[in-house]
Amino acid sequence: MEAGPRLAGTVRPGGRTAKVRTAVLQATQDELVERGFHRLTMDQVASRAGIGKTTIYRRWGTRARLVTDLMRELAARSFPPPGTGSVEDVLMANARSVLAAITDPYFGATLQAVIAAATSDEEAAGALHAFYDRRIAEWAKVVEAAVEGGELPPGTDGAELIRAVSAPLYYHLMILRQPVDEAMAARSVARALIAARAGAFVAV
Amino acid sequence: MEAGPRLAGTVRPGGRTAKVRTAVLQATQDELVERGFHRLTMDQVASRAGIGKTTIYRRWGTRARLVTDLMRELAARSFPPPGTGSVEDVLMANARSVLAAITDPYFGATLQAVIAAATSDEEAAGALHAFYDRRIAEWAKVVEAAVEGGELPPGTDGAELIRAVSAPLYYHLMILRQPVDEAMAARSVARALIAARAGAFVAV
Repeated sequence: MEAGPRLAGTVRPGGRTAKVRTAVLQATQDELVERGFHRLTMDQVASRAGIGKTTIYRRWGTRARLVTDLMRELAARSFPPPGTGSVEDVLMANARSVLAAITDPYFGATLQAVIAAATSDEEAAGALHAFYDRRIAEWAKVVEAAVEGGELPPGTDGAELIRAVSAPLYYHLMILRQPVDEAMAARSVARALIAARAGAFVAV
Repeated sequence: MEAGPRLAGTVRPGGRTAKVRTAVLQATQDELVERGFHRLTMDQVASRAGIGKTTIYRRWGTRARLVTDLMRELAARSFPPPGTGSVEDVLMANARSVLAAITDPYFGATLQAVIAAATSDEEAAGALHAFYDRRIAEWAKVVEAAVEGGELPPGTDGAELIRAVSAPLYYHLMILRQPVDEAMAARSVARALIAARAGAFVAV
């Protein structure tokens, strides 16, 4: 299984600004995992990152923007879709990517912290949207390229198909609190693919 | 849409013991919705229910058992499956029941409070199991009766099919934080049914 995205160790080339951002987002993620969204404070993040509070307040303004920026960055760095492939390969790569993300001790804990907070906090819900909108849109593009290649009925909604493959994995782990594994990921893909080939994912 | 289950007003005939239980579970649910699992205390429940602390400690022992008992009771009272029907009717009734439960302001908030707590608390996860195990088993029985009637391939796993219909609704509302509606419920049923008819839910 791929390792979950953790910002540390993945610093991209860049100057002082990029380094500050990486340090601050890493501290944000550590605080989220260890203390949860509701106890996350800008001051604590500043102290943990070793960056002046003024810099953090000027650049991000609020705790919500900090978490939203982190989630966008995680979406960009984590498990990018393959450039191309059969629909089945792409859907299986998506299922494996979801499985790796939600079961990774560190990345899974980050997601769960934001998901839990989003049940009672609109800002956390916004940060979650920032993550899933970006992730799903990127994967949907690859599915839709395969649709254009004629593998699935014209008009098949790639984003909806990606969500259908992901849903059972999230539901089992985060709602039912049951283990998830590769076999379940494969079943999810097989079921969605049968329905998609029958036209059940054509946008109405 | 059916009203979500709220214990108040649904007191079943019974003596003092049943009345105490209803009052205590109602107070537990109110506390969960208003304050969340992590701030729920036995003393607060006792005070809200107007029942002596000794009674509550003697009968339930721990906060986790209180919430587990509440979730079992909600599973029993909420949205029971129809006695019989075509597989499609039963799955649609399940999807509507899930939709009603998760979007009901009071019952949905109860579920979300326990789901959020379960991300970081084993006892809350246990209470969630108490709810879903009971609910899914009851609905699976009705699906499996239809399977025996020959509507779906022999060996189709009723519980797995019920979970497949429910998953997208929970995933959209509680993970993606997007609205869910009757049309989505119908799509979820249609897709699962196509896969089920093709044998994709036969237990391996």
